[in-house]
Amino acid sequence: MGLTALDKQIGFLREIDRLKTVVRQSPLLDGSRKENSAEHSWHVAVYALLLDEYACGPVNTNRVIQMLLLHDIVEIDVGDFPIHSGSSSELQAEQESRAAARLFGLLPQQQGNELLALWQEFERAETEDAKFAKALDRFQPLLINVFTGGGTWTENSVSLEQVFSRYGPVIKKGAPLLWAVCEQWVTQHFVGQASGISRQAS
Amino acid sequence: MGLTALDKQIGFLREIDRLKTVVRQSPLLDGSRKENSAEHSWHVAVYALLLDEYACGPVNTNRVIQMLLLHDIVEIDVGDFPIHSGSSSELQAEQESRAAARLFGLLPQQQGNELLALWQEFERAETEDAKFAKALDRFQPLLINVFTGGGTWTENSVSLEQVFSRYGPVIKKGAPLLWAVCEQWVTQHFVGQASGISRQAS
Repeated sequence: MGLTALDKQIGFLREIDRLKTVVRQSPLLDGSRKENSAEHSWHVAVYALLLDEYACGPVNTNRVIQMLLLHDIVEIDVGDFPIHSGSSSELQAEQESRAAARLFGLLPQQQGNELLALWQEFERAETEDAKFAKALDRFQPLLINVFTGGGTWTENSVSLEQVFSRYGPVIKKGAPLLWAVCEQWVTQHFVGQASGISRQAS
Repeated sequence: MGLTALDKQIGFLREIDRLKTVVRQSPLLDGSRKENSAEHSWHVAVYALLLDEYACGPVNTNRVIQMLLLHDIVEIDVGDFPIHSGSSSELQAEQESRAAARLFGLLPQQQGNELLALWQEFERAETEDAKFAKALDRFQPLLINVFTGGGTWTENSVSLEQVFSRYGPVIKKGAPLLWAVCEQWVTQHFVGQASGISRQAS
């Protein structure tokens, strides 16, 4: 006897439990440990729920939330590619596409196809919804770094210019008003760090 | 100068980061550790995205998802009340109401009021959306226990009758078709356990 629709949905829900074991580079705000991709997905979905007024254009908040709930599940197969790792984005995209096909393929066909299409829309970052979702996915770790005194920037010796080039375009494209705030935060962070260093050196 | 709307929203988003440190009784499916309330909230929101066809009545899936994203944030102040702890539900409700007022009160007033109302709707469990959300919030840990060979039931010496009485009414009310599957799982689990015990004893 074949699997019922519910069997397949439960199979998918069991499989994605593994996202809780994918550890990201970003710490919790209390610095106690690194966050994982499941709790990151929860957090950034709440960002979407609250911050839609800052989107670049008219967005369907609920579609953005759905995208963000699912955007990282491919990491179950391929892991997290940290923004500061310099890994090949072409190889990454290929691996993630295969992972998406496998994971969404666990679902009943129509549902799996619909959610795969939503994931692909996020990846392509062309629609207003996807641009805003991508912006939030970049804004959340930036905020963590700012409010943990450097976070992954300090760990990876990332410069102000690198922060601007690695986060700026994506956040600016999807949420220009949030990027304006980020510019202030980031500048203050690096200026503060530089003055701290010069104080230490003097 | 007062806080801007964005200042308040960011204050809220920073505050709820703490949900990642609230540890629940339920383990991950791989048994490696207990899950926390942030990753639980993510997981159960995806349950809602996939399983709305099993709701007792017509539901607005996106409202259910929003409820589930926010339903546990009160635990930041009051912790998780485990289903098998036998704690006073009146005291719990009072503490959680105070926590909700504090947390949603961090947001701009209108947004805070809207989301507080959504949280209260979930707690009252009277609308179709809230009944379904409550059912999923009970279904997810049941599924974990079934697929980890007992989980919190084994730890707390919970009987088949207790599982039926503690999970049954809520799941049945919001998602009767899911409860039908749960009944089979739970019965099989306890029958298997009983035959294991009798085999050990013989």
